[in-house]
Amino acid sequence: MKLFPLDTFAYEFPGKEIKINFEIPEFTAICPFSDFPDFAIIRLEYVPNERCIELKSLKLYINSFRNVKIFHEHVINVILEDFVAACDPLSVEIDGDFHVRGNIKTVVRASYKKP
Amino acid sequence: MKLFPLDTFAYEFPGKEIKINFEIPEFTAICPFSDFPDFAIIRLEYVPNERCIELKSLKLYINSFRNVKIFHEHVINVILEDFVAACDPLSVEIDGDFHVRGNIKTVVRASYKKP
Amino acid sequence: MKLFPLDTFAYEFPGKEIKINFEIPEFTAICPFSDFPDFAIIRLEYVPNERCIELKSLKLYINSFRNVKIFHEHVINVILEDFVAACDPLSVEIDGDFHVRGNIKTVVRASYKKP
Amino acid sequence: MKLFPLDTFAYEFPGKEIKINFEIPEFTAICPFSDFPDFAIIRLEYVPNERCIELKSLKLYINSFRNVKIFHEHVINVILEDFVAACDPLSVEIDGDFHVRGNIKTVVRASYKKP
Amino acid sequence: MKLFPLDTFAYEFPGKEIKINFEIPEFTAICPFSDFPDFAIIRLEYVPNERCIELKSLKLYINSFRNVKIFHEHVINVILEDFVAACDPLSVEIDGDFHVRGNIKTVVRASYKKP
Amino acid sequence: MKLFPLDTFAYEFPGKEIKINFEIPEFTAICPFSDFPDFAIIRLEYVPNERCIELKSLKLYINSFRNVKIFHEHVINVILEDFVAACDPLSVEIDGDFHVRGNIKTVVRASYKKP
Amino acid sequence: MKLFPLDTFAYEFPGKEIKINFEIPEFTAICPFSDFPDFAIIRLEYVPNERCIELKSLKLYINSFRNVKIFHEHVINVILEDFVAACDPLSVEIDGDFHVRGNIKTVVRASYKKP
Amino acid sequence: MKLFPLDTFAYEFPGKEIKINFEIPEFTAICPFSDFPDFAIIRLEYVPNERCIELKSLKLYINSFRNVKIFHEHVINVILEDFVAACDPLSVEIDGDFHVRGNIKTVVRASYKKP
Amino acid sequence: MKLFPLDTFAYEFPGKEIKINFEIPEFTAICPFSDFPDFAIIRLEYVPNERCIELKSLKLYINSFRNVKIFHEHVINVILEDFVAACDPLSVEIDGDFHVRGNIKTVVRASYKKP
Amino acid sequence: MKLFPLDTFAYEFPGKEIKINFEIPEFTAICPFSDFPDFAIIRLEYVPNERCIELKSLKLYINSFRNVKIFHEHVINVILEDFVAACDPLSVEIDGDFHVRGNIKTVVRASYKKP
Repeated sequence: MKLFPLDTFAYEFPGKEIKINFEIPEFTAICPFSDFPDFAIIRLEYVPNERCIELKSLKLYINSFRNVKIFHEHVINVILEDFVAACDPLSVEIDGDFHVRGNIKTVVRASYKKP
Repeated sequence: MKLFPLDTFAYEFPGKEIKINFEIPEFTAICPFSDFPDFAIIRLEYVPNERCIELKSLKLYINSFRNVKIFHEHVINVILEDFVAACDPLSVEIDGDFHVRGNIKTVVRASYKKP
Repeated sequence: MKLFPLDTFAYEFPGKEIKINFEIPEFTAICPFSDFPDFAIIRLEYVPNERCIELKSLKLYINSFRNVKIFHEHVINVILEDFVAACDPLSVEIDGDFHVRGNIKTVVRASYKKP
Repeated sequence: MKLFPLDTFAYEFPGKEIKINFEIPEFTAICPFSDFPDFAIIRLEYVPNERCIELKSLKLYINSFRNVKIFHEHVINVILEDFVAACDPLSVEIDGDFHVRGNIKTVVRASYKKP
Repeated sequence: MKLFPLDTFAYEFPGKEIKINFEIPEFTAICPFSDFPDFAIIRLEYVPNERCIELKSLKLYINSFRNVKIFHEHVINVILEDFVAACDPLSVEIDGDFHVRGNIKTVVRASYKKP
Repeated sequence: MKLFPLDTFAYEFPGKEIKINFEIPEFTAICPFSDFPDFAIIRLEYVPNERCIELKSLKLYINSFRNVKIFHEHVINVILEDFVAACDPLSVEIDGDFHVRGNIKTVVRASYKKP
Repeated sequence: MKLFPLDTFAYEFPGKEIKINFEIPEFTAICPFSDFPDFAIIRLEYVPNERCIELKSLKLYINSFRNVKIFHEHVINVILEDFVAACDPLSVEIDGDFHVRGNIKTVVRASYKKP
Repeated sequence: MKLFPLDTFAYEFPGKEIKINFEIPEFTAICPFSDFPDFAIIRLEYVPNERCIELKSLKLYINSFRNVKIFHEHVINVILEDFVAACDPLSVEIDGDFHVRGNIKTVVRASYKKP
Repeated sequence: MKLFPLDTFAYEFPGKEIKINFEIPEFTAICPFSDFPDFAIIRLEYVPNERCIELKSLKLYINSFRNVKIFHEHVINVILEDFVAACDPLSVEIDGDFHVRGNIKTVVRASYKKP
Repeated sequence: MKLFPLDTFAYEFPGKEIKINFEIPEFTAICPFSDFPDFAIIRLEYVPNERCIELKSLKLYINSFRNVKIFHEHVINVILEDFVAACDPLSVEIDGDFHVRGNIKTVVRASYKKP
């Protein structure tokens, strides 16, 4: 799984807590069971520490899942780990809101708080 | 009452708490009073421990209520018990959102937390 | 005020807390001031103890307010008392969502917790 | 500022806490800066003590602001004081949801709890 | 960055806490990366101390960002600092709800509490 | 079936065609099969000829169905005939939008054009 | 395919054209390819000639598809033919609004006009 | 009835048909029966001939109904006549969407086409 | 451009006109300008002649655009031609409802009628 | 008024009529009366003849109104003329949906058909 690297820039108001919320409606990957495409809206909210995620690299990172085979339950953990590694935030919450499969709609949520 | 068995797969990030939410809009069973069909949307959110519920078996499990005679208030308890037995989650919440009967709309909610 | 008696049946999972929510969109009674009909949606959520309310008797109980003269603020207390007397729940919340009168929309809420 | 007096009637279930919520979509007054009319939806929720507000007097009280010159930020405080003086409630919350002025939509909220 | 100064007027009920909420749907500035215009809805809620923000100056203050080059993450901090300096509120929360860029929708939130 | 008589007033712009549309959300009557109450929203649009229907009499006319036993399919024809007899309009359309019965929602529409 | 027979009653205003519209949200049948259940909302609008369809028989007719194996495209034609045979209407339109299958939502529409 | 005069400006593309649509949510007048205020949203769409209506004068014209006593059915005809007299349009349609009175919501529509 | 072939089955009611409507929310292809992925909801309505499109092959046909480079304006024409070639319908309408690109949302519609 | 030139590319299916619909939510210009900014959503639907409008030039064309002083009623005519000149379409319809000014919301529509 070779994903586009997440880029960052300096947060100019360190020490002032803000929440940054992204809605990314164009996630697609491949289902490992069926080899058919999966689709999801990814929602992500974080509190920056010293660096912010650069928007264009986030788009390219999400685009780079297009040919990756991965389960709903695991993709959210992968994004969470990559995001924390890239910008060391004070906290992050991630939602993956997946399209109906087998007549069932699935949403997966994960979160992280800097110790 | 012979229901399809729920299947599971290993959660690859044990110790990392995620929430998995399913919306299942095609529940139908038989009303024990009238012998007429009942309909509901089932909503289910759980925190996996070491195993996740496999989606296709969940669909077949729900489908297998089609000829079962059971009350609104009891069906939610049955699903809760079967779900806990199948994947031993850290917690589960289940909603049954039933169609109007006798001019009244009924929603039944149950939940479980691993001791 | 002679109302239809509320009927009950045994809750088969005593000790397991569930929430049961009814939406009853066809309440009508008579306004004591004007003698004109009033209309409301009644919403009711309870946690059963040992008995559940039987749905058909609930419909007939609500229907039996049709010729009763009663204020918005009092009807919710009457339903609350009758409901508690009928099935001895662990808790109940009742909302009466009344149609516009005198250009003003009124909602009245009452609740009960078993001591 | 001469406003219509708020009338009350006895609450027949004193000691039983209920919440009464009014939505009043027809508030209009005059802006002291521009002399142009202002418009708002007033929302009010209270817990009665021994008396309830009579609905018709509430409508006439709201109507009586029609020619009054008053700021958004102050009108909500005036209604709050008059309401508390009239029926001595256990608590009240009031929202004034004003139409767009100068491309900006304003909502003002005030509340009171009986000591 | 030369912005229009925020004006204030005396709050006539000092000591009585109210919440004042503004929705300002016409924010536009220039993206420092691309030199293309950015658009946002700004939402702002504050509890006044002794002075309220005058609505017309707030509109002109927001309009004065039209030719300013600034990042999503920083503009919210700038508005927060200017607002606090202008009216010394008990608390403020500010949301910037930005249009989609690079297929991603961004919301940034900041807040302040008077020590 | 003794219904309240519909009252009228002179249309001051005869010869100028206007459309007048009423939405009446509080229709209730009795089902002749089950003796249970039925509920509907009545929608009515007409082009007046020389007389307009007076609003208060329309409300009292609708209220007077409260104890009448009548089918969904027939009640709309009765209102249509009474309306035409009362104000001799150029045209009328009437919709009865009934609550769910037997899991089925029913809407009945009738219309009239002056020959 | 043995379906419940549709019952009728006399239309008391023959010669006066009305439209009767039913929304039936609880259609379920079996997919002939997969043997899995299908679900749909059926919408039906007709102009009666001399007879109206009786509501309870319509509900039981729809319920009787529960174990029938039939395609989306054909079920609507079957209902259309049975409906026309039962009450000889001036016209009928039928919509079957089926749940998502294979990531695709299907709606099928058929209609009939009496020659 | 003394209303603010409607002002106009030259349409710079005469001969090119455009539609101009206004939504005016702040109409209020006085009911001649009850002396209580009425409220409406006015919607107006016209095709200019040689002159367009100036927006500020339209606002002041609408504001000037505030103390006028007039029926729902007539106010729309008055606005239509004044509008046609002011700017001689190719066509106009006007809707008055009035708040609920006597449990009934009223919409009145009138239109004009230049001969 | 190698696409999955569309499959068909016999329409059992030839001569009876029905409309079949598909909503396919998971179209994705590659933008020829930027090499970035595009996303769309495809909506398609047709009147079958002697054959119906088989649902699973339609899903696989749509999936097979995943690595194709093609413009918004052309993809709809390609689908139209392939659909007509596959099942020779009496008529077809196709909508491609594309996600925002360059701050602009695009919808492209094409249609065909059998001569 | 110096606007960015609209660019085009060849329509590869000339003779096949398609409709192309753009929603452009980020139009802003300057009001000639007040010198304050105006905002609008522009909606545009056209049938291409031999050339399609290139999306990026359309975005830059719309952006180039940012410092232009122009009335609501005229801007739509200007866009219509520029669009027709750029790509010679079979037909075009343009809507400008402007933000509230003076408590009034304005929509302006213009259209063109190739003779």
